[in-house]
Amino acid sequence: MPRAVAGPEIERLIQLLARVPGLGPRSARRAALHLIKKREQLMSPLASAFEEVLGKISTCRVCGNIDVRDPCSICVDETRDPTLLVVVADVSDLWALERAGAINARYHVLGGTLSPLDGIGPEDLNLKTLIERAHDGTVKEVLLALGATVDGQTTAHYVTEMLRDSGVAVTRLAHGVPVGGELDYLDEGTLAAAIKARTSL
Amino acid sequence: MPRAVAGPEIERLIQLLARVPGLGPRSARRAALHLIKKREQLMSPLASAFEEVLGKISTCRVCGNIDVRDPCSICVDETRDPTLLVVVADVSDLWALERAGAINARYHVLGGTLSPLDGIGPEDLNLKTLIERAHDGTVKEVLLALGATVDGQTTAHYVTEMLRDSGVAVTRLAHGVPVGGELDYLDEGTLAAAIKARTSL
Ligand SMILES: [Zn+2]
Ligand SMILES: [Zn+2]
Repeated sequence: MPRAVAGPEIERLIQLLARVPGLGPRSARRAALHLIKKREQLMSPLASAFEEVLGKISTCRVCGNIDVRDPCSICVDETRDPTLLVVVADVSDLWALERAGAINARYHVLGGTLSPLDGIGPEDLNLKTLIERAHDGTVKEVLLALGATVDGQTTAHYVTEMLRDSGVAVTRLAHGVPVGGELDYLDEGTLAAAIKARTSL
Repeated sequence: MPRAVAGPEIERLIQLLARVPGLGPRSARRAALHLIKKREQLMSPLASAFEEVLGKISTCRVCGNIDVRDPCSICVDETRDPTLLVVVADVSDLWALERAGAINARYHVLGGTLSPLDGIGPEDLNLKTLIERAHDGTVKEVLLALGATVDGQTTAHYVTEMLRDSGVAVTRLAHGVPVGGELDYLDEGTLAAAIKARTSL
């Protein structure tokens, strides 16, 4: 336990900052000092941003996304294809897909993946509303944008079975070489999948 | 410019977090999402800590340290040796020395180092009060805990000259091998200094 270098208020600030992902105990001190020095330009606006988000944020009742409105900005966006539902494990995956700008659809956030080892079963995921949405008569395709991990694949398999009689098409992301990725860093499974799904030029 | 993935309030939060040292644009998104998910356990306490610090923080009129009281906790600490004054460039150096717990003295924070190239001259540093403190009749030694850089050494030289007639002893930190440091990563100057200042075992 390092010696306290300032009053308990500053030590408390450092301890809280150390719990922010990306900051460890060491960078938390540096961040605290920077925030204190730039208190008018940075700490004060950040405090306001926190208060604003804290006062408004909620989980979208339709899709499970997190936003300052409910239903969320994506669910009320009329320019998106209502027939395509992209299923993701976490809001961070939704953000990644939106940043990529690769698809203009609606989402469904499961809130995790099935993981028997961690005791996460179907009842822990946002699956009930997914069934309802898949049966709403508008949705024609459910794209499972889940990780190519054991838990991701287990979840994809479960959802596919769950939606078997719904009449909607269930698809998944393609496997292959990441854009900009070097071949010699890829595992055999990825290489085999990329070869199998090769396309004409 | 990546596409906005959420309402403007969350985008603003991400932009502000990206300006915190240790977090870049990428980790700022991850940090924002974590703070939103852990809003009761982390974002809300952090907002309170910000407000508390913002309401109380100030620069110590005696030493230039930053604290929630003025004079600061260190200046009013009667258990510290009042005859030894440790001069540092920045509050971060004071924090580093205090964390090390290597010295139980008072400090004087210059607020930077002399840097002709960056246009930082003596009038930009907290030097006037240093002269007053060195002449207060209590201080017997001024330890210059400044970096072994060109600017640090320029500043050390300037302060030494400034205090030449004060009657106080002016000292500096020893050069040498960092504890835990590998020899073959050290520059020749450090190695030469470490050899020159070698001690008996
Ligand atoms: Zn939504
Ligand atoms: Zn002070």
